Amino acid sequence: MNNYADDSLALHTDLYEINMMKTYWETGKAEQRAVFEVYFRKHPFNNGYAIFTGLERVINYLENLAFSETDIAYLREVTDYPEEFLDYLKNFKFKGSVRSMLEGEVCFANEPLMQIEGTLAECQLIETAILNIINFQTLIATKASRVRNVCGDDKLSEFGSRRAQELDASLWGTRAAYIGGFDSTSNVRAGKLFDLPISGTHAHAMVQAFRSDYDAFKSYAKTHKDCVFLVDTYDTLRSGVPNAIRVAREMGDQINFVGVRIDSGDITYLSKQIRQMLDEAGFEDAIIVASNDLDEKTILNLKMQGAKIDSWGVGTQLITAYDQPALGAVYKLCAIEDDNGELVPTMKISSSPEKTTTPGKKQVWRIMRNSDGKSEGDYVTFDTEDPREEDSIFMFHPTYHYINKTVKNFTARPVLHTIFQDGVLEYDVHPDVHTIKQYSADSLDLLWNEYKRMLNPEPYPVDLSQDLYDSKVASIQAIKKRVNAIKDNEEE
Amino acid sequence: MNNYADDSLALHTDLYEINMMKTYWETGKAEQRAVFEVYFRKHPFNNGYAIFTGLERVINYLENLAFSETDIAYLREVTDYPEEFLDYLKNFKFKGSVRSMLEGEVCFANEPLMQIEGTLAECQLIETAILNIINFQTLIATKASRVRNVCGDDKLSEFGSRRAQELDASLWGTRAAYIGGFDSTSNVRAGKLFDLPISGTHAHAMVQAFRSDYDAFKSYAKTHKDCVFLVDTYDTLRSGVPNAIRVAREMGDQINFVGVRIDSGDITYLSKQIRQMLDEAGFEDAIIVASNDLDEKTILNLKMQGAKIDSWGVGTQLITAYDQPALGAVYKLCAIEDDNGELVPTMKISSSPEKTTTPGKKQVWRIMRNSDGKSEGDYVTFDTEDPREEDSIFMFHPTYHYINKTVKNFTARPVLHTIFQDGVLEYDVHPDVHTIKQYSADSLDLLWNEYKRMLNPEPYPVDLSQDLYDSKVASIQAIKKRVNAIKDNEEE
Repeated sequence: MNNYADDSLALHTDLYEINMMKTYWETGKAEQRAVFEVYFRKHPFNNGYAIFTGLERVINYLENLAFSETDIAYLREVTDYPEEFLDYLKNFKFKGSVRSMLEGEVCFANEPLMQIEGTLAECQLIETAILNIINFQTLIATKASRVRNVCGDDKLSEFGSRRAQELDASLWGTRAAYIGGFDSTSNVRAGKLFDLPISGTHAHAMVQAFRSDYDAFKSYAKTHKDCVFLVDTYDTLRSGVPNAIRVAREMGDQINFVGVRIDSGDITYLSKQIRQMLDEAGFEDAIIVASNDLDEKTILNLKMQGAKIDSWGVGTQLITAYDQPALGAVYKLCAIEDDNGELVPTMKISSSPEKTTTPGKKQVWRIMRNSDGKSEGDYVTFDTEDPREEDSIFMFHPTYHYINKTVKNFTARPVLHTIFQDGVLEYDVHPDVHTIKQYSADSLDLLWNEYKRMLNPEPYPVDLSQDLYDSKVASIQAIKKRVNAIKDNEEE
Repeated sequence: MNNYADDSLALHTDLYEINMMKTYWETGKAEQRAVFEVYFRKHPFNNGYAIFTGLERVINYLENLAFSETDIAYLREVTDYPEEFLDYLKNFKFKGSVRSMLEGEVCFANEPLMQIEGTLAECQLIETAILNIINFQTLIATKASRVRNVCGDDKLSEFGSRRAQELDASLWGTRAAYIGGFDSTSNVRAGKLFDLPISGTHAHAMVQAFRSDYDAFKSYAKTHKDCVFLVDTYDTLRSGVPNAIRVAREMGDQINFVGVRIDSGDITYLSKQIRQMLDEAGFEDAIIVASNDLDEKTILNLKMQGAKIDSWGVGTQLITAYDQPALGAVYKLCAIEDDNGELVPTMKISSSPEKTTTPGKKQVWRIMRNSDGKSEGDYVTFDTEDPREEDSIFMFHPTYHYINKTVKNFTARPVLHTIFQDGVLEYDVHPDVHTIKQYSADSLDLLWNEYKRMLNPEPYPVDLSQDLYDSKVASIQAIKKRVNAIKDNEEE
């Protein structure tokens, strides 16, 4: 590895982004204004919603975005970029505007999570890093929310650093997990950087090092106030638990005997036996912690079987989003400046229909019934529309139009907020992670339980305004006409 | 996020590691010598082997391992650690010894990939980060190797940064992909830091920005020598490809018309049509690049269908190891200093049998037949054994003993190499990534094809020496005896 003191994230992008910048720059289009939007097409894990996360990291990235000397030297070495273009990059600074959902916001497929308006060149450069950040963090917050949904008020600890996909993933992933509903992390650095509660006691290795459960637990108890003993190193019911109880009795008030943890074996059977042993020994308040490749499905099953678990350590399955390790959010051009200096909608169509985009610069409105505050759905409009000025709105499914309703007595809350305006950070009060977590819980409270089911949730309506829908249909027709004209020319 | 100028990786660990350090330190065990080994229990993706990667990053981590002032301040704030223990951490430096496989080495389940010998305290601290690094990088190199195995000499580009699990994963993941057999990456920063070939031309957004395929391709061609045109923005066969051909003709020798890329639609059908169109236009050398959620299984199917693809862009599926996004390597105590100052084997047993460890400090030998250089299997021994001094070795399956063979006329190559000795880096010539890639290809060449099949590979033998096997059986019996003694005492 080459170590550069001035390593920056400006090159943390796909080469094609910089190649396109060069084409724009040399053809006089680099300063042309454009709007790109970030959205995903399908909820992860077949969930009914997702939890938007990643904004903090994106802000940090954009604020510090600049090509360093070694970045420029590297491009000079491996490309044929002329010096003038390298000079342009050297002076590059992000001067665009960003509107975004706030971290913790409940979000849905096919609505913009973030919107970047700026020059074609700058919008293009930042695509890769923004997606790299938002895709992962939103995925993990959503997975965490699913686990929380099956766990009620049980304590949930994130344990997955050793299986995370490299260091950043364990760090930012556990922050996302906290926002999505977890109580603590085992990763100390994440605790330091993000002010997350940290948790953890000891591993099998310590029991081996002391050669017996008893010596290990006793030594731990003499050196720590709060004790959770890991009881499955040799034999859970014959050695681990009896020795945990023995040490707890011997130490009495000198320790806080929190409970025991099991990391292998039949969790349902063992936990019932352990519960009985603890209760009979008078430790009714001692808790049982389980870990070992848990996810929301396993936990749900264990609960149905009556497992006596009070606290869950979730690792691999959460931190890698094991059953769907990528969220497919994309970053698509939706409006571009025309020759008159006006922003006009633009789109791409595709023979894969789900890859067809919705043209236009948009706003997302959460439409809440005044009667009970519950959400009727999200309503996507041109950013020039304002449903707050309407008495009623007509919401219809963008594909199946017969699914529709007229909503009255509603409150419309805009979901995209200004973060950067012309390169200046306007979102200057960064909420702490606890505030974000609470914001997320409140955002989730707006949803009927039907949308929050683990399995087969009801589809939450994400509808287009009539204007936006009409514009999309017209754009598709215009493109088809243009393509057919090319074909007709060829056939002449 | 709290920004600390002195942010270090010392706290990039699970809290329980530091809690155990404290117990060791307060009970006089912190300096006791121990040996830990890293291994995984099952090949990822049901593959027949894995490609070891991550050493470079681990070396960097260990060389720089130190608690910073703010690390100590944080621990003081959130724990009840006494000042004396914080002082101990403040003065901490890694002084242990590390033996490891070299990057690119073909490796197998249930054999040590890396071995750390040092004080209990230092060995414990580094567990989390080492696993975090090796698990991910080894996983991706292995996935890349699987893709390479179905692609012959086709060009393979890693395209996945936007879907990677945060920034480090895209960076170190694409390095691992290169080692495992990929030709290039789209990530410019990875190119800079690791000297990887970078590739990429343009996206759909550029075609939209120029409003037509023709204008976009022409503009790109005027500003770049090497051209791969993305032809599926509006209509691949009616607009994309005809316009690519038109621009290639118009530009003639002014550009190097490398070919076209498709990112949607029916790749088999489209590629056959495109091949015909390019050939008829006289561009027989122009290549067709495909992308769009490809992995080794999709590529194999496309090839069977006769898709005319010369070059593959692989993103999400590779960089997240989508079908198995975590490698479960563990870090287990296998030997510990006794009261006489001697290292003695230790193990844990488990009611989940696969979680039972093999005690003892080990070496792994690759046993190659002198007749043809092919590998007979791996032979795991105590590090004090040396099969090079034997004329023949008896290799038997560690569970199914009737599967066995006596090997003669062999060469035994030790696979674990000294990297650190007593805290000093001995591995001072870091090979560049191209050398590592070649080393990996050579290591793979030692294997019969039967072990390299994508589906249902033959299990490669990883056998224990007789001494190691006997020691394991004896250890299990000793532990069972001890546990039964506890039980018997209770029942008295």
